[in-house]
Amino acid sequence: MPVTALIPYKPRNPKTRLSCVLDPEEREAGCRPVVLSTEPYPFGDAEVQAVPGGLNEVLNGILEGTPGELLIIMADLPLAVPAAVRRVISTAGDMAMVPGRGGGTNAIYLTRASAFRVDYYGASFLKHSAIARDRGLQCEVIDSFRLHTDIDEKEDLVELLIHGTGRSRKYLEDLGFSISIEKGRVGVTRKRA
Amino acid sequence: MPVTALIPYKPRNPKTRLSCVLDPEEREAGCRPVVLSTEPYPFGDAEVQAVPGGLNEVLNGILEGTPGELLIIMADLPLAVPAAVRRVISTAGDMAMVPGRGGGTNAIYLTRASAFRVDYYGASFLKHSAIARDRGLQCEVIDSFRLHTDIDEKEDLVELLIHGTGRSRKYLEDLGFSISIEKGRVGVTRKRA
Repeated sequence: MPVTALIPYKPRNPKTRLSCVLDPEEREAGCRPVVLSTEPYPFGDAEVQAVPGGLNEVLNGILEGTPGELLIIMADLPLAVPAAVRRVISTAGDMAMVPGRGGGTNAIYLTRASAFRVDYYGASFLKHSAIARDRGLQCEVIDSFRLHTDIDEKEDLVELLIHGTGRSRKYLEDLGFSISIEKGRVGVTRKRA
Repeated sequence: MPVTALIPYKPRNPKTRLSCVLDPEEREAGCRPVVLSTEPYPFGDAEVQAVPGGLNEVLNGILEGTPGELLIIMADLPLAVPAAVRRVISTAGDMAMVPGRGGGTNAIYLTRASAFRVDYYGASFLKHSAIARDRGLQCEVIDSFRLHTDIDEKEDLVELLIHGTGRSRKYLEDLGFSISIEKGRVGVTRKRA
């Protein structure tokens, strides 16, 4: 049975204009993606659940009612590939996490979701590590730059142009973005049609 | 036999004051670290070869004379752990690479070093990928945030304080650095004694 992969998403006023949407290739990784959206929003053929409310409250409500396994993965990870997601969901521990840049948590896989609770924002990776420890859950940290790299700022687009394999990279290229190298530093430029 | 791991290092005027030195724990990862320094410089019990010259010229000279395997790994990777290095040197391909942030190349493992040549600076990861392709070498890209994260700027120190396990983190903490969280953003502060 595929693992349910919850992907929280806020279509209105997303954090940054750069937010990219994960290609729903979790399917290939043995997952069934479910987009948790703050309001109704079409998402290709992925299931969308419109759940208004704060991220932590909504997720903890779901965790409480889920005795089995669950993956929570952020939407701004366009470098994600099935192999990386598979490493997360095939942990031998009680759970696995992938840290994001700057102390965030980009993915959490739980073999028994109801045994955990989430606490996003701030240095959530440290908070989640402490929660796992307090609850006696063995947590594996998955060492993946593809799931570690969230796209927040302009320079992050370099990573997408170099390592992207899916629609997000194509989208950027279609908008005229490409890599530029000036005085040895790698950046992005945009040629407008 | 342990893999020789070349670690280029420039003790005088290093790129940034933040440059950190990789703990020589490659030993545990099945490597024999050799620091390639632009001038004589003591480095604990690691072998140091003082080789003046440009990075590419020096390395390509060594590659040419090395029919067997070789690892080249950058010095500013304080999140490196033996397990990550082992993933690199146990590739089933002809070679393996780990990209750095911004298009760089943080590690290159070659099963037949003389079959390759390096071209660092700029978007070297793209150049190295092209060289591998041109030479018919099958190259595995290792998906590791620990080897991907080079420490260049102040905000990178957050990563070291959160994920560091070795001497570099201890060094920072002894200098009074710690994580700070202001308005949900994670940064570093320094308390001077």
